Amino acid sequence: MSFRCPEHVETTEVGPRDGLQSEPVFVPTAKKIELAEALIASGLRHFEMTSFVSPRAVPQMRDAAEVMAAFRDRPDLWLTALVPNAKGAERSIEAGVDAMVVFMSASESHNLKNVNQTRQHSLQGFRQIADIAQGTGVVVQGSIATAFGCPFEGEVPVADVVEVAKAYRDLGITRITLGDTTGVATPPLVAERCRALREAVPDIDISLHFHNTRGVGLVCAYAGLLNGISRFESSVGGLGGCPFVPRATGNISTEDFVYMLDECGIGSGVDLPKLCDAAKLAERIVGRALPGQVMKAGPRLRTYPMDAARTANG
Amino acid sequence: MSFRCPEHVETTEVGPRDGLQSEPVFVPTAKKIELAEALIASGLRHFEMTSFVSPRAVPQMRDAAEVMAAFRDRPDLWLTALVPNAKGAERSIEAGVDAMVVFMSASESHNLKNVNQTRQHSLQGFRQIADIAQGTGVVVQGSIATAFGCPFEGEVPVADVVEVAKAYRDLGITRITLGDTTGVATPPLVAERCRALREAVPDIDISLHFHNTRGVGLVCAYAGLLNGISRFESSVGGLGGCPFVPRATGNISTEDFVYMLDECGIGSGVDLPKLCDAAKLAERIVGRALPGQVMKAGPRLRTYPMDAARTANG
Repeated sequence: MSFRCPEHVETTEVGPRDGLQSEPVFVPTAKKIELAEALIASGLRHFEMTSFVSPRAVPQMRDAAEVMAAFRDRPDLWLTALVPNAKGAERSIEAGVDAMVVFMSASESHNLKNVNQTRQHSLQGFRQIADIAQGTGVVVQGSIATAFGCPFEGEVPVADVVEVAKAYRDLGITRITLGDTTGVATPPLVAERCRALREAVPDIDISLHFHNTRGVGLVCAYAGLLNGISRFESSVGGLGGCPFVPRATGNISTEDFVYMLDECGIGSGVDLPKLCDAAKLAERIVGRALPGQVMKAGPRLRTYPMDAARTANG
Repeated sequence: MSFRCPEHVETTEVGPRDGLQSEPVFVPTAKKIELAEALIASGLRHFEMTSFVSPRAVPQMRDAAEVMAAFRDRPDLWLTALVPNAKGAERSIEAGVDAMVVFMSASESHNLKNVNQTRQHSLQGFRQIADIAQGTGVVVQGSIATAFGCPFEGEVPVADVVEVAKAYRDLGITRITLGDTTGVATPPLVAERCRALREAVPDIDISLHFHNTRGVGLVCAYAGLLNGISRFESSVGGLGGCPFVPRATGNISTEDFVYMLDECGIGSGVDLPKLCDAAKLAERIVGRALPGQVMKAGPRLRTYPMDAARTANG
């Protein structure tokens, strides 16, 4: 292995957008703000806060500007929002985002399904968005969905991911997230894709976004760390599902990820007990148990009185 | 890193014992046998099948001899059973086990709590058991509970784990399992403990048994692989809990582990779809959803028709 684990990791919390958008009902704006406040109190500073999409298409995010208004004047925060088109870009700038996130899929069929246009067409739209951002001080970041596999096509060649990354770079976009949309990333694919991107577009800054749909989300994050990646996205409590598999989990849980970082001696700037409080708040807001484990199990060195429970022979 | 991932991993399925023992009700013998048959059909060959403990203390395992009778004449299987004392050792030999597993904790207070005696007293009992096994052809294996931390004492010094391993070796026991009883193992602890044991007792064969109580069970297994370990224990569906944390998961799930091995190009001899069938059978037997993810999500390259589901923007 040619890379060392990073000493510090930047975690972008995507629960307020990616997580809550998957909820079947609209989470009231005040609840969204309360959750984000709890996450900020834990030390998190990078947020995918909302999405400037059509309120008709995604009613869960119809309060995008209101949510942004609660946090836009906090210079210590880095607030991003998803932006599908020029109109969304303009709304996001007005709302005070630090960065807008454009997104397309590495696979053609997922892009067609997700945004109803070809990848080529998506890239044309991004040029418009980049022009709108120009001179405003707002950064444009790029997300690559189905970067490890596609629910319609199966394998996604690494060359297709590299091609999207190069197209992003040609638009001046250098912060890029590889999204594991349906939870098909594996440690070898993580290593392969990170290596290929480093070689083809060495000037870009890679972030990784994993789903735990097949139980190995944190293993992929660990593989990312071993490959020298220091930016990750995760969701409080593991909020957010997989659109294809109702019983399966979605995003890796931020608190389980931070627990892993803590135990590996990698800094995150996050206070784990406070983050677990935020995860429990997320459970109350959505009214059900979330997949995050550490909030249930408690800290590693939690001890019990010796009459606390039966043990089970070994 | 000085070790390479192994090319093949031996997985011991502990669901029939460790998993079903945690169930609040007695699982009928016929159901236990049906589950083990399904697991064998998937290609698994190593089983912790039952426990020869007092039927009063652990009524779930009161049918130990009957379960063994169903499989003892299968020369392709390696069947182990937990054995707490001389009486259990004799019963296990009569029942036809390939190996009996003795167990003690690396921490004194957990040993006192679990088996109501000091570690020293446990070791004296193991000498008796080793004498009983002598000449029978039955192997004695040793399990070390709380090998990564103790629910009463907190940290467990690596020296204490090494000391138990040396005591085992002095009794002629060379197959040793490190048990992560309450889910507190971490990748650095895995590396530290594997290295220390290799140095202190190079002739022993290490197996690792992780719990996913804090979400990093498979990360620890991956760390074990990277440290050259090729023997692991896991439980179908993630059957089995953590006695201290009712809401948390216990054992890592065999099918999620095999999925990870498959995707890392490491042989296990197991057919994943058949193993997922066995995991779904385990869910039906215990009458509730189990934590294993792959049985819910399906194979990595599962594809969908393009009208299958809404996607969720990125």
